[in-house]
Amino acid sequence: MQAKYTLSSITQAFIATRSHTLSLAAPLSEADMQIQSDDFVSPSKWHLAHTTWFFEEFILKNLEFNPTGFHSLFSEPYRFLFNSYYETIGARLPQKNRGLISRPSLQEILNYRQVVDKAILALIEQGLSDALASLIVLGIHHEQQHQELFLTDILFNLSHNPLKPEYQSHFFSKKTLVAPIKNSFSSFKAGLVSIGHAHDDFCFDNELPQHQVFIAPFKFADGLVTNADWLNFIEDGGYNNPLLWLADGWKTVQASQWQMPLYWQKSADSLGEYGRYSLDGLQPLNLSEPVCHISFFEADAYARWCGKRLPTEAEWEFAAASKMPEILQLYSERWQWTASPYIAYPGFKPTADAVGEYNGKFMNGQYVLRGSSFATAEGHARVTYRNFFYPHQRWQFTSLRLAE
Amino acid sequence: MQAKYTLSSITQAFIATRSHTLSLAAPLSEADMQIQSDDFVSPSKWHLAHTTWFFEEFILKNLEFNPTGFHSLFSEPYRFLFNSYYETIGARLPQKNRGLISRPSLQEILNYRQVVDKAILALIEQGLSDALASLIVLGIHHEQQHQELFLTDILFNLSHNPLKPEYQSHFFSKKTLVAPIKNSFSSFKAGLVSIGHAHDDFCFDNELPQHQVFIAPFKFADGLVTNADWLNFIEDGGYNNPLLWLADGWKTVQASQWQMPLYWQKSADSLGEYGRYSLDGLQPLNLSEPVCHISFFEADAYARWCGKRLPTEAEWEFAAASKMPEILQLYSERWQWTASPYIAYPGFKPTADAVGEYNGKFMNGQYVLRGSSFATAEGHARVTYRNFFYPHQRWQFTSLRLAE
Amino acid sequence: MQAKYTLSSITQAFIATRSHTLSLAAPLSEADMQIQSDDFVSPSKWHLAHTTWFFEEFILKNLEFNPTGFHSLFSEPYRFLFNSYYETIGARLPQKNRGLISRPSLQEILNYRQVVDKAILALIEQGLSDALASLIVLGIHHEQQHQELFLTDILFNLSHNPLKPEYQSHFFSKKTLVAPIKNSFSSFKAGLVSIGHAHDDFCFDNELPQHQVFIAPFKFADGLVTNADWLNFIEDGGYNNPLLWLADGWKTVQASQWQMPLYWQKSADSLGEYGRYSLDGLQPLNLSEPVCHISFFEADAYARWCGKRLPTEAEWEFAAASKMPEILQLYSERWQWTASPYIAYPGFKPTADAVGEYNGKFMNGQYVLRGSSFATAEGHARVTYRNFFYPHQRWQFTSLRLAE
Amino acid sequence: MQAKYTLSSITQAFIATRSHTLSLAAPLSEADMQIQSDDFVSPSKWHLAHTTWFFEEFILKNLEFNPTGFHSLFSEPYRFLFNSYYETIGARLPQKNRGLISRPSLQEILNYRQVVDKAILALIEQGLSDALASLIVLGIHHEQQHQELFLTDILFNLSHNPLKPEYQSHFFSKKTLVAPIKNSFSSFKAGLVSIGHAHDDFCFDNELPQHQVFIAPFKFADGLVTNADWLNFIEDGGYNNPLLWLADGWKTVQASQWQMPLYWQKSADSLGEYGRYSLDGLQPLNLSEPVCHISFFEADAYARWCGKRLPTEAEWEFAAASKMPEILQLYSERWQWTASPYIAYPGFKPTADAVGEYNGKFMNGQYVLRGSSFATAEGHARVTYRNFFYPHQRWQFTSLRLAE
Repeated sequence: MQAKYTLSSITQAFIATRSHTLSLAAPLSEADMQIQSDDFVSPSKWHLAHTTWFFEEFILKNLEFNPTGFHSLFSEPYRFLFNSYYETIGARLPQKNRGLISRPSLQEILNYRQVVDKAILALIEQGLSDALASLIVLGIHHEQQHQELFLTDILFNLSHNPLKPEYQSHFFSKKTLVAPIKNSFSSFKAGLVSIGHAHDDFCFDNELPQHQVFIAPFKFADGLVTNADWLNFIEDGGYNNPLLWLADGWKTVQASQWQMPLYWQKSADSLGEYGRYSLDGLQPLNLSEPVCHISFFEADAYARWCGKRLPTEAEWEFAAASKMPEILQLYSERWQWTASPYIAYPGFKPTADAVGEYNGKFMNGQYVLRGSSFATAEGHARVTYRNFFYPHQRWQFTSLRLAE
Repeated sequence: MQAKYTLSSITQAFIATRSHTLSLAAPLSEADMQIQSDDFVSPSKWHLAHTTWFFEEFILKNLEFNPTGFHSLFSEPYRFLFNSYYETIGARLPQKNRGLISRPSLQEILNYRQVVDKAILALIEQGLSDALASLIVLGIHHEQQHQELFLTDILFNLSHNPLKPEYQSHFFSKKTLVAPIKNSFSSFKAGLVSIGHAHDDFCFDNELPQHQVFIAPFKFADGLVTNADWLNFIEDGGYNNPLLWLADGWKTVQASQWQMPLYWQKSADSLGEYGRYSLDGLQPLNLSEPVCHISFFEADAYARWCGKRLPTEAEWEFAAASKMPEILQLYSERWQWTASPYIAYPGFKPTADAVGEYNGKFMNGQYVLRGSSFATAEGHARVTYRNFFYPHQRWQFTSLRLAE
Repeated sequence: MQAKYTLSSITQAFIATRSHTLSLAAPLSEADMQIQSDDFVSPSKWHLAHTTWFFEEFILKNLEFNPTGFHSLFSEPYRFLFNSYYETIGARLPQKNRGLISRPSLQEILNYRQVVDKAILALIEQGLSDALASLIVLGIHHEQQHQELFLTDILFNLSHNPLKPEYQSHFFSKKTLVAPIKNSFSSFKAGLVSIGHAHDDFCFDNELPQHQVFIAPFKFADGLVTNADWLNFIEDGGYNNPLLWLADGWKTVQASQWQMPLYWQKSADSLGEYGRYSLDGLQPLNLSEPVCHISFFEADAYARWCGKRLPTEAEWEFAAASKMPEILQLYSERWQWTASPYIAYPGFKPTADAVGEYNGKFMNGQYVLRGSSFATAEGHARVTYRNFFYPHQRWQFTSLRLAE
Repeated sequence: MQAKYTLSSITQAFIATRSHTLSLAAPLSEADMQIQSDDFVSPSKWHLAHTTWFFEEFILKNLEFNPTGFHSLFSEPYRFLFNSYYETIGARLPQKNRGLISRPSLQEILNYRQVVDKAILALIEQGLSDALASLIVLGIHHEQQHQELFLTDILFNLSHNPLKPEYQSHFFSKKTLVAPIKNSFSSFKAGLVSIGHAHDDFCFDNELPQHQVFIAPFKFADGLVTNADWLNFIEDGGYNNPLLWLADGWKTVQASQWQMPLYWQKSADSLGEYGRYSLDGLQPLNLSEPVCHISFFEADAYARWCGKRLPTEAEWEFAAASKMPEILQLYSERWQWTASPYIAYPGFKPTADAVGEYNGKFMNGQYVLRGSSFATAEGHARVTYRNFFYPHQRWQFTSLRLAE
């Protein structure tokens, strides 16, 4: 995690990021921000607090940065309540109980944000060591990750309300319309290629070190699989044919009775045959949009049904780095499942302190997603960026791109 | 369910009850009223809505009372969201999901209450048939039951917050101090006695019909078991001796690792050896208070440990009806587990309509509690009143009285 | 548990009972006797061992009866392996693991039976104190209970084999054919009646003490509900109408997707519309037989569907004791669910030793069944006999008789 | 799956393999072979039947090989009972129910084996097409895999018996004694290497195709981690330090309360501080033996505790192929967890028929193990062989080798 930033760029980025998080909360009531509909999501209020805790715990509480004790701990219990998963920090509230913490109130959390913001800005003004800059930038990128989670989690939380409430009625009108992409592939030759981050600017530790990978010749789809494509898969019995699925995937399909992507529903006439629920409520399915809210298992089964496969993350990175103009929808659309289990790059070393728990310990059983989504904070993703989720998870803005 | 009420007494009771419910909500934020910490409790906001739904569903929606359609349904989805368990009414939200319904907002629910209140009062003014009076009185008693549940549920919900927040700091200061009761028994002779309700005023259907029961001679404790008594049971290893317990009770003790009543905790010095959490937060244990938040299994094991037993509900009713001055703490203290499974009285007949689901279908696997608690609405309980819960449940204000 | 028996009658009863258990095992292979298909049943081999352990643990190990140590413990680990539920005896194998104990082998268990049989017979020959006679008679009745469980358990265990193997092809040909019973009721007047055992001969502690119960006038069906009757209930949608069911029963129906009694199946043409599996394999449904393998919840729902109810156990005992010739099918047919939760009679006292765990600690959440079944050992049941199971259980030979 | 075999070598291999399976069953009773102690293991009897079913289903039932119908299906229900996981074949008994199938009896299964053996040998004598040879050789290797599972499963099944019975008292005396291996590493340079099978003889489809992998310089331990090493890890608190574990691993440690490898136990004096249970019963721990019965999570945590890591499967294969004399314990000792998730090699293609389900569909969530164990059939493993299990599984003969 190297960083080389000016004081003013960091100040700006910090203010902008902190303020953007608040703007995401604007459409919600205190009750909306309290609910938690499953163990793996968090209430909106918790996201507001946890991202603040991160700055307090790793920077303000650090004697290196706070030798005079100019910032005193906002609240001892917050260390327990808003620690996500850092064993180094100590005991913490089980994730499944986050939705039960009605106190501290939203107002207290907003106050907490203000106090920590002021302290961080005061610290920046005192001068910016490399170590401090690195941690603030990490905190910013951390908060950007939670901005996307804020949206995926509130969508999931609200989706359990049979009224299918909208988060924001015009959420997608701010986003560019998706143009239909023709179903073509670009070809790449075999070779030994460099994968991983090698620049001076920020990256997460899991993007390091840059290393050599041998890639065989492959073809890479120019666009993402669409809702129209997916309807063909459904209508061809894709969800009912075990031969298309990994064994674990088929178990999941049967146990969960999946017959379509998450948030799709067979619907009333006004919406056409299928509707889809999203941040703007329940709407007709747009056939030319990339399919969304599919698990790795579904992506993998779809690819097998086509006689294709998912790209590896090395192929994705190599293809994306080529900047070939034919290849579209890499970023700001939907995350793209790859065929690659999320494991350490050769020579990977987590940092020695608590922040070392950030990524490394999750390297089991998950798959890498590449690209970024419409909900990803601007400037957050890059060609080496590695997102990761379990193969059965569907509540992220996930899609797929084919390879062969 | 017979009733004979004047228009003005019903109007007054309706207004007082509806208004008292709101006063219970006063100490809580919208987030407090949203949380639900287990499947068997409900969020405070849901109680506000459901008690209103009861009046709308069973009275205002009834063509008999609303032939001109003067009240139109407040919201079609509310029938789904706020139906508790009436199969006759139709599909409903699973109880475990009540805490996820952040919309309608608290404000909308308060508005719903006002609209229904006005309509009911308008209906009363049009004249009070027997059938209408019966249903309004039933609705009032129903809401009184939910007033107690409102308190037991919010206590349970808040108890999952490690900050142990208080519902209201002076909640118990309004209540009379409990005087220590000497550990004596009153004696009763054998006889054929009448059990059940036989007066003109309101009772629930499960108190009917009055019928004959033969009772053998018995002794009945003059007071409730205290916290001091319970500490003796703990210190004598009561929670670790399987021979004291029913087999199902012992399974529960082991699975749940019970070592003390619910809401007790071994505590820091300032609270003494044990503290107890309640509506006023975490406080030192008052040794002379009746023990509270114990399951039937614990009550039964305690009685066996003493060489005594729990009274049957017929014994309780007969003793309470005697109005012997020695017998204290019958009402307004803690509910008292009896040895009697909750079953129908001989000749019991639920009413034929949806309200017929009120009591009868729960007559399995539960035990009768008699008396009432400090949280029971004034005027709600009576000597024939039958409360009932499952033998493992502890979140009610439950205690015990011995017999032999 | 009083007993007054001659030496020769006890010797004969002991030999006959022990030998009958072996005859029940005759149709089975060692593998058949090893399997256990759910936590609540036991392997046949375990029944052979446990009934033997009972005699060794409560008689031979007792210094009162074995002062010279003439019998030494057959195997220390057997105390752990074959203790069913006696906390007084100590730790024991969890019931769910009984099916995993392939060693000791069947041959070793048969040897164990022989050794214990010889020792008990030797003890009897030395002279029969009242205490010893009581315990041997208790052991005999205990083994008779396990003879019925042996059959209900092996039926359940074999039923999980899709080949639907038979236990014994002509099992039922030895039993009397069931004559159709007309659908009539006998009437009884109100009165204070004596319930419970009062004779000199053996009974279980739960049949004591005899006590007075007031019974209101009632009608009692002369015969049991038949398969033909039950088909009417099914065809009228009985399993799909929540209003017929207790709330806990309806939850069970939905969770378990019950649509017919246990062991019934919609079947191929050769069997008619429904077939039923039993100890003689899969056979056509005999419409005039009493319905079998129904839970209390089903019995209760059926009675409600008819506009009738189940009799209480006091009503059953009073009616059966009347010996009215119209009343048929009381014994040796099917156990009959009553409306009575299984609780202690007033004044019930379990004995002070380990055998005191025999009955009392199970007095929660179960219902009393009266009568006996075709699988009940001859001479085992009587008019005061109280059998008991949980309301969802169906693997016993259970049926119902109506009352009103 | 290419194969080039002579008729006589196949005949010999077939007879030897089929007969070896029977010899594994020799120490067991019918009851031993019936038990199944968890969903993921199988009863011994089922292994005897399933390996036979494989030959009948994929060869004898195939019209290509059996055009005259010279072999008629032994039993239609066996197709259901003994199909393991082939969706192409159709419905099958859930794995968890295998232990309930007491019929067909052991004798019937042994008869089934004889009938199928005769038919296969008759088919071989009629002449050996390439397709037939391939399938018979696959069936032989399939049965060899089940020979190891037969031993790991019976060990797991018997381990649930508190008597800790032995499978065979002298099982390990036939095996070579393990010499202590010094704790040294061999070094390898970076390079583009060929991984995967490329010879004419048999391999599984998951070893194909051979392909290029770039490997960075690495060191490879000459021997396996020993019980003595593992004791150091335990005594240093390895099982109680979350920072050593993957997050999923730590969850498993806590949920399962692991404090040592499977089958270890803190023990009585006669066995020293720790004993270990294996096929020869409960024995003292041999400190110089490779540690056994550890999960991937434990192997990974141990490596992190040492400041080392697990080798990738490409590193393992490259080092093993080097045949450097320093590198020991590659085969016939314990399976060795690698750092590599079990995924398809680039260009992997499962065959088109039912046998195509053999490997490919399990490529999710598992890790590759390399080498072989003392229980692996002679001639079964090879340098390209890929074994695979889930990261929490411990009942296989699994160990680890370090890399850095």
